[in-house]
Amino acid sequence: MDRKEKILIAASRVFRKYGLNKTKLSDIGRESGYNSSSLYYYFKNKDDLLQQMVLYDIEKIKKALKISLQDINNMKSGLKNYLMTRVEQMDIINRYEEMLQDSVMSPPLRKFFRKIEKELRIYENRLLENFILKCSKKHAKDATVITNLVLGVSMKLTVARMLDRYSLDRIEKMVDQTVKFLLRES
Amino acid sequence: MDRKEKILIAASRVFRKYGLNKTKLSDIGRESGYNSSSLYYYFKNKDDLLQQMVLYDIEKIKKALKISLQDINNMKSGLKNYLMTRVEQMDIINRYEEMLQDSVMSPPLRKFFRKIEKELRIYENRLLENFILKCSKKHAKDATVITNLVLGVSMKLTVARMLDRYSLDRIEKMVDQTVKFLLRES
Repeated sequence: MDRKEKILIAASRVFRKYGLNKTKLSDIGRESGYNSSSLYYYFKNKDDLLQQMVLYDIEKIKKALKISLQDINNMKSGLKNYLMTRVEQMDIINRYEEMLQDSVMSPPLRKFFRKIEKELRIYENRLLENFILKCSKKHAKDATVITNLVLGVSMKLTVARMLDRYSLDRIEKMVDQTVKFLLRES
Repeated sequence: MDRKEKILIAASRVFRKYGLNKTKLSDIGRESGYNSSSLYYYFKNKDDLLQQMVLYDIEKIKKALKISLQDINNMKSGLKNYLMTRVEQMDIINRYEEMLQDSVMSPPLRKFFRKIEKELRIYENRLLENFILKCSKKHAKDATVITNLVLGVSMKLTVARMLDRYSLDRIEKMVDQTVKFLLRES
């Protein structure tokens, strides 16, 4: 792990603890073990650090989602892996809500979040649709519809997990039933 | 329309125009044509007015969703009606984001929103699941799974409509394909 990465991970902890508004760069310095001049070498200011932290997290999420479908050549395992991975990864995004609830976001920061969310949506759509097209001739003609349903239900499961505190066991059962139904194995 | 309702509708316009933080009760008075003492007769303060406005909107949404399934006895029309109605109604919720982006929500207000969202989720789950159980013996055993898929895809469609600016025509095509696939008519 390089120095910048260490700072970003420390920042994530500090932002969650104090909220974006109350966090000072010096707090992140203390938590990461580097002094302020090191921080200013990598980041222009607090907003810049936050944005780079988000980009770092999003890359991790994309990588995990990609890996969840890698070398898998049957629909059932692929869709199940994808859904479980996505519910777990979205925990990261959920933390942002906590971090940001103490502050009014600046318009550039709001724009940044909108852009990142959109890029992630496009990335996920392509990843899943390509997986279905590659994986199953039988489902190829329904690839777009299945993609929409899987990504849709993943949003519902994320809400169930984060807000309604469903256990991972319960989520897994829902995933199994959903995938079975989608693949017409019921 | 009674006086309180008129004030709530005026409040919705004013909050959207100025944001929650900058809105004064006197602005809402001016917009609705009532003086401040009338407002204080119905509402304790600005937060109370906002909460009552949200409750009023949510009741309208629930009613519209209920009506979308009323007297319908085939799955295809029901699910299509529901999805189209939901995407249109969620526009109301989407406005809140605009209204609230200039302010830091107080913990009680945040708690209020969480509670309302949860109640709406439970309401929607029951409404759709009961419709499926009542409407189709063939699909009764899959009622929970279909409910999750329909509500999930409705979230995805709402995002497509609100953030990615899909036209209602395009949304309708997606709804048609989705319902067809779910009912195994493809």
